[in-house]
Amino acid sequence: MSLRNDRFLRALRRQPVDRTPVWMMRQAGRYLPEYRATRARAGDFLSLCKNPELCCEVTLQPLTRFGLDAAILFSDILTVPDAMGLGLRFVEGEGPVFDRPLRTAAAIEALAVPDPETELRYVMDAVGTIKSALQGSVPLIGFAGSPWTLATYMIEGASSREFAHTKKMMFDEPALLDALLAKLSDAVALYLQAQIARGADAVMVFDTWGGALSPAAYERCSLAPMRRIVERLKASAPAIPVILFTKNGGQHLGKMADSGCDALGVDWTTDLRDARERVGGRVALQGNLDPLCLLARPERIREEVARVLDSYGAGSGHVFNLGHGILPQTPPDNAAAMIEAVRTLSPRYHQAP
Amino acid sequence: MSLRNDRFLRALRRQPVDRTPVWMMRQAGRYLPEYRATRARAGDFLSLCKNPELCCEVTLQPLTRFGLDAAILFSDILTVPDAMGLGLRFVEGEGPVFDRPLRTAAAIEALAVPDPETELRYVMDAVGTIKSALQGSVPLIGFAGSPWTLATYMIEGASSREFAHTKKMMFDEPALLDALLAKLSDAVALYLQAQIARGADAVMVFDTWGGALSPAAYERCSLAPMRRIVERLKASAPAIPVILFTKNGGQHLGKMADSGCDALGVDWTTDLRDARERVGGRVALQGNLDPLCLLARPERIREEVARVLDSYGAGSGHVFNLGHGILPQTPPDNAAAMIEAVRTLSPRYHQAP
Repeated sequence: MSLRNDRFLRALRRQPVDRTPVWMMRQAGRYLPEYRATRARAGDFLSLCKNPELCCEVTLQPLTRFGLDAAILFSDILTVPDAMGLGLRFVEGEGPVFDRPLRTAAAIEALAVPDPETELRYVMDAVGTIKSALQGSVPLIGFAGSPWTLATYMIEGASSREFAHTKKMMFDEPALLDALLAKLSDAVALYLQAQIARGADAVMVFDTWGGALSPAAYERCSLAPMRRIVERLKASAPAIPVILFTKNGGQHLGKMADSGCDALGVDWTTDLRDARERVGGRVALQGNLDPLCLLARPERIREEVARVLDSYGAGSGHVFNLGHGILPQTPPDNAAAMIEAVRTLSPRYHQAP
Repeated sequence: MSLRNDRFLRALRRQPVDRTPVWMMRQAGRYLPEYRATRARAGDFLSLCKNPELCCEVTLQPLTRFGLDAAILFSDILTVPDAMGLGLRFVEGEGPVFDRPLRTAAAIEALAVPDPETELRYVMDAVGTIKSALQGSVPLIGFAGSPWTLATYMIEGASSREFAHTKKMMFDEPALLDALLAKLSDAVALYLQAQIARGADAVMVFDTWGGALSPAAYERCSLAPMRRIVERLKASAPAIPVILFTKNGGQHLGKMADSGCDALGVDWTTDLRDARERVGGRVALQGNLDPLCLLARPERIREEVARVLDSYGAGSGHVFNLGHGILPQTPPDNAAAMIEAVRTLSPRYHQAP
């Protein structure tokens, strides 16, 4: 089915566009009063994730309000480890907790790769429901966490800043961590393939914690598993763009661009001008306004949007986004100011030569 | 007074050494049982910082245990804002809290730059006491927080991950933030000059949070104030090496090397081979083992030390260190294994040509 607005997919493929497409990480989220209302009806966060109708409702909310150039599946990266039997709970004020963190070789060997259409059926149903509801208006982005990022939550059992258990395993039992990362690569590849089968028009891999690794460890534990996922996706669905995003991964952009993916997410700590030089036209770039900028006055937001657009410069291959998820305390009108600025300021970068 | 072991200072000046010098950030700290005993006698953390005799005791503990190549003043970066009247407390399990965070132009205008020899006399007395106790054995490192890093604590009032108030001020009231950073630059320069006058042989500026900024904001809010400090130190004490360390600042090393400083701290997310290329022989480098590696088995620690030494390569200009502070849960024997590995593995990088 052709899309009425395919600006996002064209930019990912570095084809000409009339203006820079824009969406926001976590665009369906707590900063929106309509999201908080739906979430209250669902009960807790995980119940919302597991209800395809309500997932669809919140996915569409920011599109209705702002008119963005892409929808993103409302879900959580930890659905995959939950489906692997770790027992996910969200504790208010603390974030995710697994009842059964992974610490032993036996526990890792016992893990099964989930079948998305059975153990993660609720996600697949959400993708299908959202795809129908969109009626071809804008593309739908599917997503998953990177194997390394998922492994940190599974081994630590909760959010962490230092990843003590995970890194200890990395140093002392590298073969064991590799075995876990291999299973997670399989699980994520199957999960994204299933999202594509249900209608996702592009997929994104969120590597939230790859930036906590040394370059050698990043290559081995974060990038190599993502590369295996890209290879499998490109073998099964070559036309679907794949975006990789390593938070704090600015120094790895060159290596990431060699993975076979179509685009890289870039956070605000790297200048897009430098990023574009480093990837040398091999991939599109997505980013990279500091989400904290959306707490500033609208006229300042507009100036910063202008700066980001200018740092990428002329030509296609840029998807405007924040450098990380929008914060819960963001005034929705400030997000609107950002989107309006992209709409009005970006056409000049896409003139015919 | 000449030092019996000046390997650390020689490496900072890129003069020949017999082996790579080594010290550890937070080497006097909670991972050592002897530190915990002294701290218990002092009462809380701030009482320990304000007691020159006990500061001296804990400063010397890791030297006695491990035989490191440098001592570092035991203190805290927040002594300076405390002396500026913000009312510092350390809350168990939460970290530092200021009773009077800075939020208004009036509060920033009212701030006075403290005179180190009066308002921070206890730190100066600690420097003098430690310097005497060292009896010329190894150099003493003085230190301070960077103006940007101090500003984040002063404006947020506590530890933060997102720096919402500070960044809002940066975007909406840049002149106000600049005024605060200018006062802090003065305060830090005077504070480090006073430490040098009392006997510090080198000084280090800890920019813990500069890595949370965009490159343009880093240049303006973090690097520019540090550059002003370096200029003042080089004018008043040209022979004293100055080390700048921006955590997560790998992408800024080239610009940092132009500041006039002598050495840069490098965390483990940047390879020292790349870092050395980027700074092009202008400065020495200090780092960069992942502190989490010290939770691994000693033989793995040794392998990782070998990798770090090899990544810097042959020649002087490398000070071995962790990429960030040693963690409280580190077994002291593992720190010993790291230090021993540096001692035995590094001489081969310092052969006469």
